[in-house]
Amino acid sequence: MSAPMLKPGNTIGILGGGQLARMIALAAAPLGLKTHIFAPAGDNPAFQVADAHSSAAYDDLAALEAFARTVDVVTYEFENVPVATAGHLESFVPVHPGPRALGITQDRLEEKSFVAGLGIRTAPFAAVDDEAGLEAALATVGRPAVLKTRRFGYDGKGQVMIREGDDASAAFAAIGRHPAILEGFVPFEREVSVVAARTADGRFAAYEVTENEHRHHILHRSTVPADVTPAVEASASAIARHIGGALGYVGVFAVELFLVVEGGEQAVIVNEIAPRVHNSGHWTLDGAVTSQFEQHVRAIAGWPLGAVERLGRVEMTNLIGDEADTWHEVLAEPGAHLHLYGKAEARPGRKMGHVTRIRPEA
Amino acid sequence: MSAPMLKPGNTIGILGGGQLARMIALAAAPLGLKTHIFAPAGDNPAFQVADAHSSAAYDDLAALEAFARTVDVVTYEFENVPVATAGHLESFVPVHPGPRALGITQDRLEEKSFVAGLGIRTAPFAAVDDEAGLEAALATVGRPAVLKTRRFGYDGKGQVMIREGDDASAAFAAIGRHPAILEGFVPFEREVSVVAARTADGRFAAYEVTENEHRHHILHRSTVPADVTPAVEASASAIARHIGGALGYVGVFAVELFLVVEGGEQAVIVNEIAPRVHNSGHWTLDGAVTSQFEQHVRAIAGWPLGAVERLGRVEMTNLIGDEADTWHEVLAEPGAHLHLYGKAEARPGRKMGHVTRIRPEA
Repeated sequence: MSAPMLKPGNTIGILGGGQLARMIALAAAPLGLKTHIFAPAGDNPAFQVADAHSSAAYDDLAALEAFARTVDVVTYEFENVPVATAGHLESFVPVHPGPRALGITQDRLEEKSFVAGLGIRTAPFAAVDDEAGLEAALATVGRPAVLKTRRFGYDGKGQVMIREGDDASAAFAAIGRHPAILEGFVPFEREVSVVAARTADGRFAAYEVTENEHRHHILHRSTVPADVTPAVEASASAIARHIGGALGYVGVFAVELFLVVEGGEQAVIVNEIAPRVHNSGHWTLDGAVTSQFEQHVRAIAGWPLGAVERLGRVEMTNLIGDEADTWHEVLAEPGAHLHLYGKAEARPGRKMGHVTRIRPEA
Repeated sequence: MSAPMLKPGNTIGILGGGQLARMIALAAAPLGLKTHIFAPAGDNPAFQVADAHSSAAYDDLAALEAFARTVDVVTYEFENVPVATAGHLESFVPVHPGPRALGITQDRLEEKSFVAGLGIRTAPFAAVDDEAGLEAALATVGRPAVLKTRRFGYDGKGQVMIREGDDASAAFAAIGRHPAILEGFVPFEREVSVVAARTADGRFAAYEVTENEHRHHILHRSTVPADVTPAVEASASAIARHIGGALGYVGVFAVELFLVVEGGEQAVIVNEIAPRVHNSGHWTLDGAVTSQFEQHVRAIAGWPLGAVERLGRVEMTNLIGDEADTWHEVLAEPGAHLHLYGKAEARPGRKMGHVTRIRPEA
């Protein structure tokens, strides 16, 4: 369905009940919009701040229809929503981003092929359907390389590095012998990302490039501005604009990039696309005129996009597992902004919250 | 009950379901706190963003007890909560601000007497219990004067001006012959306010003085910084500290002040105290490091108070009644922050939302 413009008083349906849905709901409220969260039973902290919630499986068509009939647009907080779910919902109500963006980005091979097909640089890659295919792929891509399941990977899950001398067969077993993609290892200097928004009628706005530091494959800290050249800033924004346009994308999305230095010049290589608000954009909550969450709401509502200017030098640090126990120290630190996600249990590796710190421009 | 320190995962109970409760709830969530709203049936936009809500009358003791047993602290969004309600709740759970602050501030005569008793300057005033008392009060206070009901007045309701030649009897009839206070008219230059927070252990923080422009007795626009002298800034903060301490206050409160010029010098006279977050502090949502809503939550939770620094030159404009129809223009204005309250119907004079605009320091 095409997207009529939302009005205050309307309701946004969100698939998924985690912190991203929660922060979208918190951003929707000041714009006069209600939210209805749909998520399977479990710890769904987004329920705490939404006008309504439904607990059912993503393949419960009757529950999805009942949900769709109470909302004016549907969005989602993660790319592993079944495409069939998005398609079913779309027969009742606009779904943004649409099933096409979802289908492409939830399969690493399709995504890489799509990006490369736009003439945008990615790591070398090859499909791996079986063990023989892995040997062939290694011959093409070389070592070291990273073997990743095509689907359902996040935060380093479902991937394994294959170095010189490593046993390819063991690596394929390690990822459960699922259909996979082999990606050539990129000798990157740093990891950066660009978070951007696009509307149905093609308006576009990108935040400044964010520099990201990972620990154990999980984002630890984002810093803005990134230590990149103006050419990289322009290139990252252009890449996001190109990808967003080619996907007919509506909403906020992130493009994760490898920053490489070649012949003394910085350049970027696309790592992956996240069709949703993104952890590396959490700094915008306190550090930009418009947060990525409000921006996403504006985009899917068909409204004007907000200003993306930065409010200072910003650092966003995730609180993983028991790091959230430092909440009181954060509260006592002048100018630090605490964001806790309302999760019941602080399991190791679980994102429990984040902290934003803003310093004046140097 | 004394106040233990709250922990993330705890629940704040809020009496009242309007925009102030809503904005407190929206500020509590990022701090990891849930909210439970208690309000009589009606249009309660705070319900849209709270984890739980109860609809019952403020004198329904059983419902109040059931509510109290689900929360860790109780606060309220307006000063007309019956003192008996606050007292009943206090037998189960800490109530901040406490019944004493509530009792004093919901009666204009008690409040004026309390402030004057602290040696802080107010308008001249006298009690009016009946028509004869009004004649006596007019003889003391002089004309022009403002006759106000002692209780349940807000936004200019329950008050009438008595000028030279006006019929006192008609004025007393106009306010329903309720017990009243007669206040001498203060020839003020402008109206300003100070919004401050105090914790149970006496920590205190005040935002900068805000200049307020009213239309039809309803706040139209707040501007910060106010055009006041450093002496007035210091005096306003000291007055708030003095009042907060004398009330044993816990939470955010506002002191509305008349700015007068005498012998070429600015001075302030206390108009009234609001024992709650206040419309003239809405600019802090986008214009200060910590919003008044987060500050209130921090104070009643027994947590460190947040930084109160301003982020620029700030202007907050209310959207009253059909002014909220301009929402799309506000969204299209770069850097303007829209806040709608989720109310179902835009009746004339009803506060439907506000807009914040922030300019860099000159």
